[in-house]
Amino acid sequence: MKPPRSKRNRIPRDRESDYTPEMAEVRRAFLREQTGVGLEHLSHYSFDPSVLPGNIEHFTGVAQVPIGIAGPLLVDGEHARGEFYVPLATSEGTLVASYNRGMKTLREAGGVKTTILDDAMQRAPAFVFESAREARAFGEWLTDHFAEIKQAAETTTRTGRLRGIEQYSASRILFTRFDYTTGDAAGQNLTGKATAAACAWITANYEGITNFYLESNFATDKKSSQVNVLHTRGKRVVAEATIPAALIEEHMHTTGGELFRARQVSNLGGFMSAVNNNGLQSANGIAALFIATGQDAANVAESSAALGFSELLPNGDYYASITLPSLIVATYGGGTGLATQRECLELLGCYGAGKVRKLAEIVAATVLCGELSLGWAIVAAEWIRAHDLFGRNRP
Amino acid sequence: MKPPRSKRNRIPRDRESDYTPEMAEVRRAFLREQTGVGLEHLSHYSFDPSVLPGNIEHFTGVAQVPIGIAGPLLVDGEHARGEFYVPLATSEGTLVASYNRGMKTLREAGGVKTTILDDAMQRAPAFVFESAREARAFGEWLTDHFAEIKQAAETTTRTGRLRGIEQYSASRILFTRFDYTTGDAAGQNLTGKATAAACAWITANYEGITNFYLESNFATDKKSSQVNVLHTRGKRVVAEATIPAALIEEHMHTTGGELFRARQVSNLGGFMSAVNNNGLQSANGIAALFIATGQDAANVAESSAALGFSELLPNGDYYASITLPSLIVATYGGGTGLATQRECLELLGCYGAGKVRKLAEIVAATVLCGELSLGWAIVAAEWIRAHDLFGRNRP
Amino acid sequence: MKPPRSKRNRIPRDRESDYTPEMAEVRRAFLREQTGVGLEHLSHYSFDPSVLPGNIEHFTGVAQVPIGIAGPLLVDGEHARGEFYVPLATSEGTLVASYNRGMKTLREAGGVKTTILDDAMQRAPAFVFESAREARAFGEWLTDHFAEIKQAAETTTRTGRLRGIEQYSASRILFTRFDYTTGDAAGQNLTGKATAAACAWITANYEGITNFYLESNFATDKKSSQVNVLHTRGKRVVAEATIPAALIEEHMHTTGGELFRARQVSNLGGFMSAVNNNGLQSANGIAALFIATGQDAANVAESSAALGFSELLPNGDYYASITLPSLIVATYGGGTGLATQRECLELLGCYGAGKVRKLAEIVAATVLCGELSLGWAIVAAEWIRAHDLFGRNRP
Amino acid sequence: MKPPRSKRNRIPRDRESDYTPEMAEVRRAFLREQTGVGLEHLSHYSFDPSVLPGNIEHFTGVAQVPIGIAGPLLVDGEHARGEFYVPLATSEGTLVASYNRGMKTLREAGGVKTTILDDAMQRAPAFVFESAREARAFGEWLTDHFAEIKQAAETTTRTGRLRGIEQYSASRILFTRFDYTTGDAAGQNLTGKATAAACAWITANYEGITNFYLESNFATDKKSSQVNVLHTRGKRVVAEATIPAALIEEHMHTTGGELFRARQVSNLGGFMSAVNNNGLQSANGIAALFIATGQDAANVAESSAALGFSELLPNGDYYASITLPSLIVATYGGGTGLATQRECLELLGCYGAGKVRKLAEIVAATVLCGELSLGWAIVAAEWIRAHDLFGRNRP
Repeated sequence: MKPPRSKRNRIPRDRESDYTPEMAEVRRAFLREQTGVGLEHLSHYSFDPSVLPGNIEHFTGVAQVPIGIAGPLLVDGEHARGEFYVPLATSEGTLVASYNRGMKTLREAGGVKTTILDDAMQRAPAFVFESAREARAFGEWLTDHFAEIKQAAETTTRTGRLRGIEQYSASRILFTRFDYTTGDAAGQNLTGKATAAACAWITANYEGITNFYLESNFATDKKSSQVNVLHTRGKRVVAEATIPAALIEEHMHTTGGELFRARQVSNLGGFMSAVNNNGLQSANGIAALFIATGQDAANVAESSAALGFSELLPNGDYYASITLPSLIVATYGGGTGLATQRECLELLGCYGAGKVRKLAEIVAATVLCGELSLGWAIVAAEWIRAHDLFGRNRP
Repeated sequence: MKPPRSKRNRIPRDRESDYTPEMAEVRRAFLREQTGVGLEHLSHYSFDPSVLPGNIEHFTGVAQVPIGIAGPLLVDGEHARGEFYVPLATSEGTLVASYNRGMKTLREAGGVKTTILDDAMQRAPAFVFESAREARAFGEWLTDHFAEIKQAAETTTRTGRLRGIEQYSASRILFTRFDYTTGDAAGQNLTGKATAAACAWITANYEGITNFYLESNFATDKKSSQVNVLHTRGKRVVAEATIPAALIEEHMHTTGGELFRARQVSNLGGFMSAVNNNGLQSANGIAALFIATGQDAANVAESSAALGFSELLPNGDYYASITLPSLIVATYGGGTGLATQRECLELLGCYGAGKVRKLAEIVAATVLCGELSLGWAIVAAEWIRAHDLFGRNRP
Repeated sequence: MKPPRSKRNRIPRDRESDYTPEMAEVRRAFLREQTGVGLEHLSHYSFDPSVLPGNIEHFTGVAQVPIGIAGPLLVDGEHARGEFYVPLATSEGTLVASYNRGMKTLREAGGVKTTILDDAMQRAPAFVFESAREARAFGEWLTDHFAEIKQAAETTTRTGRLRGIEQYSASRILFTRFDYTTGDAAGQNLTGKATAAACAWITANYEGITNFYLESNFATDKKSSQVNVLHTRGKRVVAEATIPAALIEEHMHTTGGELFRARQVSNLGGFMSAVNNNGLQSANGIAALFIATGQDAANVAESSAALGFSELLPNGDYYASITLPSLIVATYGGGTGLATQRECLELLGCYGAGKVRKLAEIVAATVLCGELSLGWAIVAAEWIRAHDLFGRNRP
Repeated sequence: MKPPRSKRNRIPRDRESDYTPEMAEVRRAFLREQTGVGLEHLSHYSFDPSVLPGNIEHFTGVAQVPIGIAGPLLVDGEHARGEFYVPLATSEGTLVASYNRGMKTLREAGGVKTTILDDAMQRAPAFVFESAREARAFGEWLTDHFAEIKQAAETTTRTGRLRGIEQYSASRILFTRFDYTTGDAAGQNLTGKATAAACAWITANYEGITNFYLESNFATDKKSSQVNVLHTRGKRVVAEATIPAALIEEHMHTTGGELFRARQVSNLGGFMSAVNNNGLQSANGIAALFIATGQDAANVAESSAALGFSELLPNGDYYASITLPSLIVATYGGGTGLATQRECLELLGCYGAGKVRKLAEIVAATVLCGELSLGWAIVAAEWIRAHDLFGRNRP
């Protein structure tokens, strides 16, 4: 196709002062002219656009995403303890109801126990050499000079700490994962800068690197991968609960045995389909919580990976757990300080410094409630009925 | 932990009329009392909650997600043709700028060619039998009775059509995928109901099914999987472009050869890390477009799967393509009719009947622009710098 | 390194008559001269080398691989029925004992039920086009011209039948899998020739194919892949058995509950490690049977893929099954007619025409016996002890 | 089926002295009686069965597998240097010819450079706890007590050394990989015993382990897995070569550009089919070398995993490499001391102590030759023709 020549179709931008209600309106007017669409609702927001640099470019308005509340969610965590009302931003009918139902049952079962197993955010530079031997030698050098590399990386950040460098080799390439802890931030940018600084030091002090790339599919930012399932990205969190047999029957109108049998079949299916998640609906709760609390919604791609593990106990009780190996959350930076997003974090007592592990535990506990809720719905064949009842906006 | 006994902590709900501004305020008041958080911004929305049944339960307010506009995006599709201004809802700095930059380059390169290769939405019931032989016999019966099953399924839907039933067997279980076309809806609910109806007919007409589950990890709803990469979920869309060597140098300050070499290393990395996506940042554009246009954000989990394929042409031009094998979009149902979401769809000329393929093409074209933009940033080492410039809200 | 110039180091070969005891001795003499190694044992073989064209080049002698016999294996198949003595060629101590023990237990449990679910051998040509649209159009043409393509393919073979053509698309490429039944041959060569003929017809009758490759990683010959787990390569065979609780206790000194719990943990481990096989030791039995019966041992790579599925029944009995989704066997062609190999096939009543499904069932039944044997050894911690007892040649 | 009652069908075994020519004949006589098959060739072997304890049970005869010789293979390794004649035991026509052709080309190109990047053999016990927190605490204890665990493990072995313990967690389970170096043995048994001893010490010194399993799918013995691709099992070896453009044209009648383009398509195919190997035929060379040299042929399952990486250099030369991340070889123990197997190891100068890395390099170099040979055959469409010429025993 031939590209149009004129510049009349260029999106207006004020180089001096672009984050104003006026410039947002200028852009809406431009879009109205170009497309004929009114854009009345887009302009309803309750904050000053001057807070937005670092969050968006070409700010034009807001998406209003409905928030429903589920809970109380009873959490027996190391950072989150007690009852929480969980804000879920979604337009998918039955989602809030499903999580709410699971929260009710697990509350009666004594709550959800949560544990953070690991914490690591990565950048994954790759280094190319003349041959495999040089790549191997470089790997040894990297190990020997970890202290200096760590120092170089950490000059760029107050909160980030370089924990270690994983090495993976093939051909004449050394793939690495620089693992950091990043405080209350998700840390993708922080680790980007720190790793760039580390690599600047490395390339200045090591001869013979033929090519160098700051990313090469080994951190798998915003992508699901086995390496992140194995080695953690963000927080690795487990949520566990044991549901008494009587409660299963009362709430779910089924038995632990039935739930368990369904999981066996589903596990085999997942092994064959090569799914990144042998659970049921982690992405639902995670996406809704992420949008509500100002997390990066693109991280749903990797954060929704999940490892479900259940046991049917001899007495008929049902042990259920979900492990989120790559849950990426923040209580500082990114969208966490925006108007409604901050309110939702505050609702959970998770806004600001020192709260990120608490938030991670709440997310995992929420996910487990949704797993049980949908798990028994499938078994009890209530699933379709539930969608009929609540989900009538759907064709 | 001991669950609290009182019902004072129960979320208020009006069984008769819950979708009103008043009930939303009742719930905010309840949350204020429980948590002490003001929730002022949450209450700023510009629509009547009476539209929300089917979209949310326990409606309490909205998340305000900033929208920036990128474009114009020049698309040479079969359904989308011409220039589009793409609304991206995100709080991640540089995202809009990155896509905007890619759109500019590809516009000068003549636009993005888009093609929908396939279209299928699934439910995946599993059937368990006495032994493998009965499972095999049932598979044959299923093939022979496809017409009747199709009829049973389609009684429940105006727009859904059962295209076929895939069969996968292991042990004494037959896993199936019921493949539908679903018009302008994403179709997860529609296919759920239709498949339940089909299975009701099946179980009424076939003896010997020991167990039956409506889902068993073979549709992998909201989960990334190899079976969906192979066999499509939602739309399978390709976006392609060839960028002249001169344009690469002018816009990217690099060469096609450099871009291509980086991709080779990255492809090997992705093969080792077992990532579901050998591209770079599809989840960014998809999540932002999904939130803006009322798609189900949980579908980012599977929709962000991507297959990148590039070629360095003898004359130095660079052929780039991205294939989205499981892109789930709707222009009808779900959140598409909500206030701001509808405006964003209208902005793209994609609201309502007969528009879903156009939207799918726009999403794919947008993704390709982001791939190139980040691809050359990595090569040109501009990546960190770009984040420093725009992304300063990040720690 | 500088390559040596002289031709004195060239392996001797007689262009007229190379498959003779004399030429084998000429080569041994040459090797003796080059390396100083005597090669006395290599020369002990009991057949006439004139049978070897099509099996080997530069024939120089034989490997003598010890064969042990396990059994009787009681099979309740559709093709294999009754008791079988299974020849296993291996040098790994405890292997024969382990399979033998499993066979004994399953014999007392009433034997192994076997079922062949599917049968397909592939070649997987890829076709590259100008753009995705041309690839899509070609896919439709391929469907429409299946009859002619089938005819072209089948001109090259008496036994091969083209069952269908699977299509997988990405970018501007159409990947295909040409699926054949191949009678009693494994069929890799047969399908290679037939597909080459089919593609010759296709490329002669279709304009616009930019590039064509006879293989592109979609048949995954001699490689393990998810596509073969899903869509079968060779035979898809299930072996099942239910072992009474009393028998488990008597033979295994454990309970079905213990076996089952161990499997749950192992299944989660396998999901995380992304293994191609959630069973235990299929490769052991398959490799040993393949070498004994003249199968292509390189096919162990894909034939050893396995899907285990077990259930603990309410009465404590244990249902166990193994599904081999890509078992490649032959009773005709390849090494099946060689001297000892033929004897081993005859031992199983599997030599020659019409026997391949019987052999596939025997292999699957054998594998199941090994799974149980090692499964309970792990649980009963007998494993190390067993290796100490039998495996003393190992360091 | 009803199991036969009599013991007349039991395989004869002499509890005192079973490894004799007489007992082998007793078993052959028994089989003759049971099946009517003569078994004349099976009895042709040239060694004394008294060497076989630890290699086989129920010894009955040998499989005679034809051996062809390819080479000379020119290796520029750190352990293997110079020219080698490579014994390949196979019954698959064209295999020896294909490898031989690749060896010739790469010899003219200056030989194959080989590098061993890593060396580790595993057992992978799993430990189950009351909850995730206890699993996490145990993980820390494990790290703190590595020295004692190492000591406990190494009491059982002269050559094995515990290098480290990898930890992977999910739910209330800690999966581990105990990584050893194992000298010239493959080391599966050695590591089994050592890890059992280590675990005996652990379970005696740590309270609160609910369940313990010596294997749980994280070492993936004789199975292909991503964890082994990432973290090595056996030797991690790279073979590299750069082939001058002129040589490609002379030997392959094609260009580096054509080879490279085919690889790009094939890489995308492999990414979609989720193959464990983006190369072509590693299993062919590995299986043939394994049988000839007394390796465990079941290890073809994991040893054949391969990572191919090529570059087309600006001058038209072609850089090719193959990485074998989990190559399991031994020059001591197992079948390496058997009659013909030892001769073949001697032929390579690889029999006995201190030779295992040399053997690993020869295997990798051989594999690379086969990759190139088949790679250009596919491109040059010579593949079918080659099979017609040599492979005529095939149907």
